[in-house]
Amino acid sequence: MRVAFIVEYDGTDYAGWQIQKNDVTVQQKIEEALLSLNKGHITVTGAGRTDSGVHAKGQCGHFDIDSDIPAEKFMFILNTRLPKDIRIRRTWQAENDFHSRFSAKGKRYIYRIFNAPYSSALMGRFTMHVPENLDIEKMQQAAEYIVGTHDFKAFCAQGSSVKTTVRTVNKVQVKKEDEIIEITVEGTGFLYNMVRIIAGTLIEVGKNKKTPLQVKEIIEGKTRKEAGMTADPQGLTMDEVFY
Amino acid sequence: MRVAFIVEYDGTDYAGWQIQKNDVTVQQKIEEALLSLNKGHITVTGAGRTDSGVHAKGQCGHFDIDSDIPAEKFMFILNTRLPKDIRIRRTWQAENDFHSRFSAKGKRYIYRIFNAPYSSALMGRFTMHVPENLDIEKMQQAAEYIVGTHDFKAFCAQGSSVKTTVRTVNKVQVKKEDEIIEITVEGTGFLYNMVRIIAGTLIEVGKNKKTPLQVKEIIEGKTRKEAGMTADPQGLTMDEVFY
Repeated sequence: MRVAFIVEYDGTDYAGWQIQKNDVTVQQKIEEALLSLNKGHITVTGAGRTDSGVHAKGQCGHFDIDSDIPAEKFMFILNTRLPKDIRIRRTWQAENDFHSRFSAKGKRYIYRIFNAPYSSALMGRFTMHVPENLDIEKMQQAAEYIVGTHDFKAFCAQGSSVKTTVRTVNKVQVKKEDEIIEITVEGTGFLYNMVRIIAGTLIEVGKNKKTPLQVKEIIEGKTRKEAGMTADPQGLTMDEVFY
Repeated sequence: MRVAFIVEYDGTDYAGWQIQKNDVTVQQKIEEALLSLNKGHITVTGAGRTDSGVHAKGQCGHFDIDSDIPAEKFMFILNTRLPKDIRIRRTWQAENDFHSRFSAKGKRYIYRIFNAPYSSALMGRFTMHVPENLDIEKMQQAAEYIVGTHDFKAFCAQGSSVKTTVRTVNKVQVKKEDEIIEITVEGTGFLYNMVRIIAGTLIEVGKNKKTPLQVKEIIEGKTRKEAGMTADPQGLTMDEVFY
């Protein structure tokens, strides 16, 4: 049967989602946990790769297993075999044609900035520290230009090979509560580092180093170096995958 | 001059606030950071002691130092000398009769519960995991009985010596957002372990092991063993000190 799952992880101590030769990854940890339940190796597929240090609250994945165990029970079984910074939130039996990556209709990411003269002792592992006071209204104005179907070449890590750099972003929302600024980005698909480059560009708008209108021009210009820096990995969380 | 400060810390790796003989504490780390600024040892006083593993967002403290450095600058100076899980949020010059403990008019604590069948990979270090579904409405009803001036002997760790166990609690609020239940407790003063015993008792109400009315009877009965367990330290954060 095909078992689908939702997994939450603190990415601080992992070299991202995808299996690597010499580094510990989240996919590897889940495959290792499955090994004790099955004679052979089981490959786990995720909805999206997350980079080293990036977190997930609602990464989705699936695997195939021959088992009499009801699919719902795998949550408990896997959690007893996984480290505390990787937690399965739900498992269920999926249709055989369900695919965590190809069936996904969209994703929500949240990028968190700690905006104060001091960094955060409590939220440091989940936020990027920006000491300069950011202008939230300007960031929200700039965010509006990002919404829509555009060629996001300027917001794609250089050197990544994709057929097309056109993507659809449905929502970019900038919200501040106490010292934490949350940038929520929803879209049907994302380029490599796209959300972190969006965050880095909005931070420059917040610092008044770029105007909101310049963000529109950056999209049109399709040149990576015109956009902002790639914001720190620890600020990013894959919040939810939509099906 | 007397310098007052607000400090945030992740208590996970500390044996609480107060200096101990063989353990690393937050007070010790701040005193060590001050050593490099002064010829002799400077003692730091905090508004309240926090136990091993308990966090603070707004612990307040003070120290006396002979220095030409403006008091506001100590925030930056101390933060460069402190570990990342201890962050000074503000420093200012206080009146000479200001005392972080004796001048305090009250404190706010927040106790966080992660209420889901799985624990949290992201918030595990800041929450107590309770897998059973808790009845928030009953917890809030029980909370109302705690508000007021009462003899809180039943909510005080046994063996602690205090002149009186009468305390005034101004607010107990139970709120749920997603999987996280926040119990906010404000009062003029607290007994040893009092907030964690309040949280432990409200958890039993949420599990329907105690009725809200029984909490009133527990207060009146003044017997520690009638109240609930002392909830885990990592769920507790000293949120703010009022002056």
